[in-house]
Amino acid sequence: MNRSVVLPFLLFAGLSLAPFGNHVIADEQPLFGYSAASSRTERQWEEKLRAIPSPENLRAYMQRLSAQPHHVGSTYDKNNADWIASKFKEFGLDTHIEQFDVLFPTPKERVVELVEGGPKFTAKLQEPALSQDLTSNQQTEQLPTYNAYSIDGDVTAPLVYVNYGIPEDYEQLDRMGISVQGKIVIARYYHSWRGIKPKVAAEHGAVGCLIYSDPHEDGFVHGETFPAGPFRPPDGVQRGSVADMPFYPGDPLTPGVGATKDAKRLKIEEAATITKIPVLPISYADAQPLLAALTGRVAPEGWRGGLGITYHVGPGPAKVHLKVKSNWEIKPVYDVIGKIQGFTFPDEWVIRGNHHDGWVNGAEDPISGMVAVLEEARALGELVKSGWKPKRTIIYCAWDGEEPGLLGSTEWAEAHYEELRAHGVAYINSDSNGRGYLEVEGSHTLEKLTNDIAREIADPETKLTVWKRHQLHAIADAKTTEQREEIRKRADLRIPALGSGSDYTAFLQHDGVASLNIGFGGEDEGGIYHSIYDDFYWFTHFSDTDFVYGRALAQTGGTAVMRLADADLLPFEFGNFAETVQTYLKELKALSQKMQDDIRERNREIEEGVFKATNDPKKPLIPPAVETVPPHLNFAPLENAVDVLTRSAAEYHKALEVTNANGGVALAADSIAEVNKMLMDSERKLTNAAGLPNRPWFRHQLYAPGFYTGYAVKTMPAVREAIELKQWKQADEAIVVVAQVLQDEAALIASAAQKLGQAR
Amino acid sequence: MNRSVVLPFLLFAGLSLAPFGNHVIADEQPLFGYSAASSRTERQWEEKLRAIPSPENLRAYMQRLSAQPHHVGSTYDKNNADWIASKFKEFGLDTHIEQFDVLFPTPKERVVELVEGGPKFTAKLQEPALSQDLTSNQQTEQLPTYNAYSIDGDVTAPLVYVNYGIPEDYEQLDRMGISVQGKIVIARYYHSWRGIKPKVAAEHGAVGCLIYSDPHEDGFVHGETFPAGPFRPPDGVQRGSVADMPFYPGDPLTPGVGATKDAKRLKIEEAATITKIPVLPISYADAQPLLAALTGRVAPEGWRGGLGITYHVGPGPAKVHLKVKSNWEIKPVYDVIGKIQGFTFPDEWVIRGNHHDGWVNGAEDPISGMVAVLEEARALGELVKSGWKPKRTIIYCAWDGEEPGLLGSTEWAEAHYEELRAHGVAYINSDSNGRGYLEVEGSHTLEKLTNDIAREIADPETKLTVWKRHQLHAIADAKTTEQREEIRKRADLRIPALGSGSDYTAFLQHDGVASLNIGFGGEDEGGIYHSIYDDFYWFTHFSDTDFVYGRALAQTGGTAVMRLADADLLPFEFGNFAETVQTYLKELKALSQKMQDDIRERNREIEEGVFKATNDPKKPLIPPAVETVPPHLNFAPLENAVDVLTRSAAEYHKALEVTNANGGVALAADSIAEVNKMLMDSERKLTNAAGLPNRPWFRHQLYAPGFYTGYAVKTMPAVREAIELKQWKQADEAIVVVAQVLQDEAALIASAAQKLGQAR
Repeated sequence: MNRSVVLPFLLFAGLSLAPFGNHVIADEQPLFGYSAASSRTERQWEEKLRAIPSPENLRAYMQRLSAQPHHVGSTYDKNNADWIASKFKEFGLDTHIEQFDVLFPTPKERVVELVEGGPKFTAKLQEPALSQDLTSNQQTEQLPTYNAYSIDGDVTAPLVYVNYGIPEDYEQLDRMGISVQGKIVIARYYHSWRGIKPKVAAEHGAVGCLIYSDPHEDGFVHGETFPAGPFRPPDGVQRGSVADMPFYPGDPLTPGVGATKDAKRLKIEEAATITKIPVLPISYADAQPLLAALTGRVAPEGWRGGLGITYHVGPGPAKVHLKVKSNWEIKPVYDVIGKIQGFTFPDEWVIRGNHHDGWVNGAEDPISGMVAVLEEARALGELVKSGWKPKRTIIYCAWDGEEPGLLGSTEWAEAHYEELRAHGVAYINSDSNGRGYLEVEGSHTLEKLTNDIAREIADPETKLTVWKRHQLHAIADAKTTEQREEIRKRADLRIPALGSGSDYTAFLQHDGVASLNIGFGGEDEGGIYHSIYDDFYWFTHFSDTDFVYGRALAQTGGTAVMRLADADLLPFEFGNFAETVQTYLKELKALSQKMQDDIRERNREIEEGVFKATNDPKKPLIPPAVETVPPHLNFAPLENAVDVLTRSAAEYHKALEVTNANGGVALAADSIAEVNKMLMDSERKLTNAAGLPNRPWFRHQLYAPGFYTGYAVKTMPAVREAIELKQWKQADEAIVVVAQVLQDEAALIASAAQKLGQAR
Repeated sequence: MNRSVVLPFLLFAGLSLAPFGNHVIADEQPLFGYSAASSRTERQWEEKLRAIPSPENLRAYMQRLSAQPHHVGSTYDKNNADWIASKFKEFGLDTHIEQFDVLFPTPKERVVELVEGGPKFTAKLQEPALSQDLTSNQQTEQLPTYNAYSIDGDVTAPLVYVNYGIPEDYEQLDRMGISVQGKIVIARYYHSWRGIKPKVAAEHGAVGCLIYSDPHEDGFVHGETFPAGPFRPPDGVQRGSVADMPFYPGDPLTPGVGATKDAKRLKIEEAATITKIPVLPISYADAQPLLAALTGRVAPEGWRGGLGITYHVGPGPAKVHLKVKSNWEIKPVYDVIGKIQGFTFPDEWVIRGNHHDGWVNGAEDPISGMVAVLEEARALGELVKSGWKPKRTIIYCAWDGEEPGLLGSTEWAEAHYEELRAHGVAYINSDSNGRGYLEVEGSHTLEKLTNDIAREIADPETKLTVWKRHQLHAIADAKTTEQREEIRKRADLRIPALGSGSDYTAFLQHDGVASLNIGFGGEDEGGIYHSIYDDFYWFTHFSDTDFVYGRALAQTGGTAVMRLADADLLPFEFGNFAETVQTYLKELKALSQKMQDDIRERNREIEEGVFKATNDPKKPLIPPAVETVPPHLNFAPLENAVDVLTRSAAEYHKALEVTNANGGVALAADSIAEVNKMLMDSERKLTNAAGLPNRPWFRHQLYAPGFYTGYAVKTMPAVREAIELKQWKQADEAIVVVAQVLQDEAALIASAAQKLGQAR
C-alpha cells in the first residue's frame, strides 16, 4: 500500500443536494440514477447491508490471515488464498483462484559495511523478535529486509547523503558542487515513492543506493517506538519494491499481457523495470554510523533528519561496501475471484478488490482492508440469500502480489483486458484501513456517488456522518477563506485523482475502468509499515483496535458496490468532472506561466549578480546557469475542449433533470442499456491506444502517477510532465492529444444526453 | 547583544539618487545637507578617514580586551575601562570615566537536580575548559552560568516542557489541558528575548524556570561544535539577563534616574524588574536527561528539538529541584566618555557607542564591535591632528554593564537626560560584529543617511559597495515579485525600526534621540554566545578572522559620525519616514481586521462543530471558547495625522530642493541653527512625557520593544499592543495619543520647511 500522504476529499462545486442530516428530504428524493420505486427498494436493501458487518468477524479474519508471513511464494500466501476462496464460496459467491506466474526475486546475499572513513561497521539488516509480540519471531518464514527488483550488485564506493533523493535534491547537490558519479548514495524514505530514489540516483551516475527510515519522518521523533508505542523502532526496516512501476507495473517479464503459464516472457536482462543499480533498505540504527561518518558540507537545513547527529553530505570519507544478490525465480500469484451474477445487466461488472499478500504478517497492510472487503462479501451474500437481486454482476477480488509490484491485479487486468473494456463499470479498491476520516480518491465522474454514500455512513468516533466529519476536517485544514467558503457552500466534497500505489492502477490507467480507492485514516499513526512488526499484536494495540473503522469501511464499500450494481442509470456525473478538468487546465497554464516567470527572474538575478553577491565564501554555491525563457504554449485546443466538455456535461445534467422531473429514471430497458454503455465508456474514452509518451502502458490521458513521484498523481500527465521537464515541443503536441481525448469524451456525453432526451 | 535574528535593511521609496557606482554624478551632487563647497571638503576628509582603520590594530585591541573575563564588577572590567580611556586620550579625545553604582547579583548557589521520575541526575552547570583554547580555563575569574536578576528561590516540582515559553505556547498548552501551575517549566532559547520566558511562566503560575539551548537552534544540528567547529558544544550555556527590561532597563533600583552615588534607590523587594520565579540557564547536555524523563503528551510537531529523543510535554513524572541564590550587591559600572569638541555647533552632539563589558571573555560580544569603535576614535583623532574641524561635538562612549541590563548606557542617558534632550543629534550604536551584510536598524528619519553611507563602503568579500551587496541580498530573500520590484526600483533600502537588545534603548526610547544600530553579519554562525568560549581563539578561528569586517564597520561608523558632525543642515529626511509610518498604520488596520476575521471564523467553526469533529480521541484537544468579535476601531485620527505628516514631509522636501537648486545649503548661520534645532527635536517630538501605558519609562510613541517579545520592535506600540492584547478601549485611546504625537511632528516639520523657505 501507498504510504505517502493520502490526500483526503477536497470540496466541490456540484449539484445541489439536500443538506446533510435532512434525511426526510433525502428520503423523498430518488437516489441518483434510480427511479422512485427502485430507489425505495434500494434504500431498504442498503440499510440491511450496513447492519451486517461485525467487528468480531473482522478481528477473527485478521488474526487468521496475519498469523504467518504471507508474501508471494510463501506457503501461507497460498493458504490464505485458499481460505479466502473457501469463505467467498461459503458466502455464496461463484469463486475461483486465478494463477499467474511472475518474476519475484528474494534475497540470497545482503551486505552493508562501512569499510573506511569511520569505525568499521557491519549493518545488522535484521529486525529483532520481541517477546510480547508473538508473530515477530517467525524468522524462518519472514522475508529478510530488502528492496524487491533491485539488480544484483557488489560495489564499494564513497557515500553521499542525498536527502530524499528526488530530482530537486540533485539540483541542490549541483549548486553545492557535489557529484554522485561513482558513489553510493544514502537517501531517506518519503517525499517520493521509494523506487524513484535508485532511479534518479542511477540517472546521476551513482553505483549503489541505500534507503533508510529517518526518525524525523518515521521513528522516535513522533512518539514512543514499538513495542512501547506505535512508532518505528531503531532496527525497524521498510521493505518494499523498487521496480520502475511508473514505467509499467506488474510482472517485469510480461508488460501488457497476463503472466499466464504460456505467456511470452522477456529475458530478465530485458526487463526495463528492474533497477540499474543495487539498492537496500536499512533501519535508522544501521544508518546512523554511516551518516555519522560523513564529513564535508553540512547538510542544508531541509535535509537534516531526527538523529542526534550533525548531518553531512559527504562525499566520504565514509566508504561503503554494498552487496545485493537475489534468487531470480518465477513464483505463482493467486488471485481469488468471487462473482455474484447480475440479474438484469449481467454483462456490466462492478468490481471490488483488495490485496491479500503482505511483506511479512501484514496485519495493517493489507489485512485491515482485506477483512472489511471479505466482510462486505459476506454481507452481500446474506442479502442474496434474503432475496436481493442485483441488476449487475459483482466481482469481489483478493489480489496476490500487490507488494512487489501490483502483480496479481495487473496481470488479471491485462489478461482480461478485452472483457474489462467491454464490461467494466467501475473498480473500487481498498488497501490498509485505520482510524479517522473517509479518504476517497478516484475518477471524478464518480465524485457525486462517493459523496452520496459518505452521507449514509456513521463515523464511529463522532457519530456524525463520515461526510460531515470530512467536511468539518476540510474546513479546519483549509488554508484560505476562499477554500473554506467553497467547502461550506458546495454540495460535494472534491475527491483527488488517483496516481498509483495500489491495485486500482491497471484498471484505471491501463484498461480505462472508472476507479475509486477508499479507506479510513488520518488518525492512525505508526511506524511498522512493511516491517515484521506490522502484525496482529501491533494492530490490536495501536490502530483500529476495536475494528469499528473496519466495519465502517465494509459499510462504505458495500454500499458503493450496491449503489452501482442496482442503479437504473449508472450514477456517473459530469458536472463535477468537467469543473475539475477545468481546474487542471488552469493549473497547467499557471505552471507554464510560473516557469516562464521563474526563469526570467532567475536570469535577471544572475545578470544582476545576486548569486555572486550572496555567496558566502565559507559555504560557496555554484550559481545557476542562464536558461532560455520558455515559449508560450498553445493552450487553445485544451481550452476549447474543456469548454465543449463543460457544455456536454450541462446537457447531460439537463437531460437528467427532465428525467427526474418525470418521476425518476423510467426509460425503456434497451434505451437505458444503451445510455449505460455510453456511461461505462466515458472512462475508456479518456484513454488512448498510444498511451503516454515514453510509457505506453499508461493509457489514461487525465490521470497517471508521476514518472518522478511514483505514487503522486500527475493530471493531464503528458502535458504536465512535458512542462515540468521543459520539453516545450512535446508539451504543445500533448495539448493537442489530450484536447482530442476531451473532445471525444464531450461528444460521448452529448450523445448520452441526447439519447436520454429521446428516451423520455 | 541581541542575538535574535537581525533584520537587515529593507528597501525604500525615497529620494531619487544617482545609481550605485556612478561616482562621477554622485561627486557632482552635493552631499545631503551640505553646500557644494562643504560637500567637496567633506568628501576628502571622509576618504582620509576610511583609509585609516587597520585590521592589525583591531586584532591587537581584541586580544587585549578579551584576555580575561570582564563582566561588571570584575578586576578586568575596570582594567579595560581604564585602558580604553587611555587610548581615547592617546587619540586626542577629551576623556573621562563616569561611574554609576548598580545592583548586580552574582550566583552563590545553583542547583538543578532530577529528584524523581527518572535516573537521579545533577546538572553540571559548568562549561569545561579546553586545552587548545587558552582563556577557557580562567575559571576563578569566570562568572558561573546563570541568569542575572533571577529572584532567589528553592523549589521542587514536576517539570513541564513549554517549547519557547512564549504566550502562544501557553495557548497550545491550554488546548492540551496542561497547566504549569505549581510546576517548573523548561523552555528552549529563541523566539523571544530570554527574560520573557520566566515572565510568562510566572504569569501562568509556574514556580521555577529552566532555559536551555536546544541543538535545533543552537548546537550540533547546525554543524561541528566548538572546538571542532563554531557551534555550541553540549556543555555550552547561554548566560544572560532576565530582568524585565521591556518594563524598564538599567539599574533595577533607580528607574528613570542615574544610579549615582547619592541617587534615591528602591529596596530590592520593590524592584519590579527582578523575576517573580527563580530561573537558571542550562546546556543541552544538562537538559537532555530532564527532557528524556518527561512523559505524557508527545510534544506537538513545532515543539520538537534536535536532541535524539522523543520530546514530551509532561507534566512529570520528572520532578526537578531548582535552587538559585545570589549575592545581591551594588557594583560599579565604568562608562568611558571621550569628546571631540565641535567647532561651529558645539552644543549639537553626535554620539557613538558600544559596550565594553562581556559575560565572560566576550571576544565577539561585544569586543568585535568595540574594537571597531575604538579604531574609529583613533581615525577621527588622526583627522583632527591633520586639521579637520568638525562642526559638531562628537562623543565616543564605551559602556559598561550592557549585558546585565543596558546598565551603563541607561544610567548615563538618565543622568544626562536634560542635556541629551537639548543637545542630542543622534546616537549610533554598535555591538557584536561579524562577516556578511551591513545591517542597519533605527530612526526612519536617518534612513536616507544610512543609505548614502552604505554606498561609500566597500564589502571586503565581494568588493561591491555594502549597499549593493545588501540590495542584491534583499532581492534574493524577497518573497514576492512586488517586494523584488520595490527593492530594485526604490532609491533607498528600508531600515527596520529598533526594538531593544543593546545600548541605543535609553537614547531612543527614553530620551528621544534619533538612533541607529549598525553592524555586519549574516554569514557569521556559531554557538558561543554568552559562554566561556566567546573568546579570541573562537573569533580568530571562526568569525571575521582577518578583521576585514571590523575595518568595514569602523569605516561605516566613522563616516556616519562625520557626515552628521559636519553637515550644514542635519541630514534628516522625512519622505522615507512618513511613508514608513504609513505602512505601520496599514499594518495596524490589517491586524485589527485580521483579529476580527479570525475570531469570527473561529466562532463559526466552534458553532459548526469543527473542533469536536476533528478531535482525535487518542490525542484530545480542548476546543477554544467562543469570543466576542472585536469592535471596529476608529483609525481616523491616525489616518488624518499620517496624511498631515506626509504633506509636511513633502513641503520639507520641496524646500530642500529649492535650496539645492540654489547651489546647496547656503543659509545664514542662525537660520541654519534654528532649522537644525527643529531637526534634532524631530525625534524628541515622537516621545511624550506619559510614556507607554503601564510602562512610562518607554516614552517613544513609534518604537518600543514588545512587552512580550523583549527584543523585537512593536511600532506604534501603544496601539499595536492594545490590539494584540484585545484591549479595545485602550487601543482607541492610544490611537488618539499617537495621532497627536504625529500631528505635532508634522507641525514641526512644516515649520522647518517654512523656515528653510524663508531663509533663501
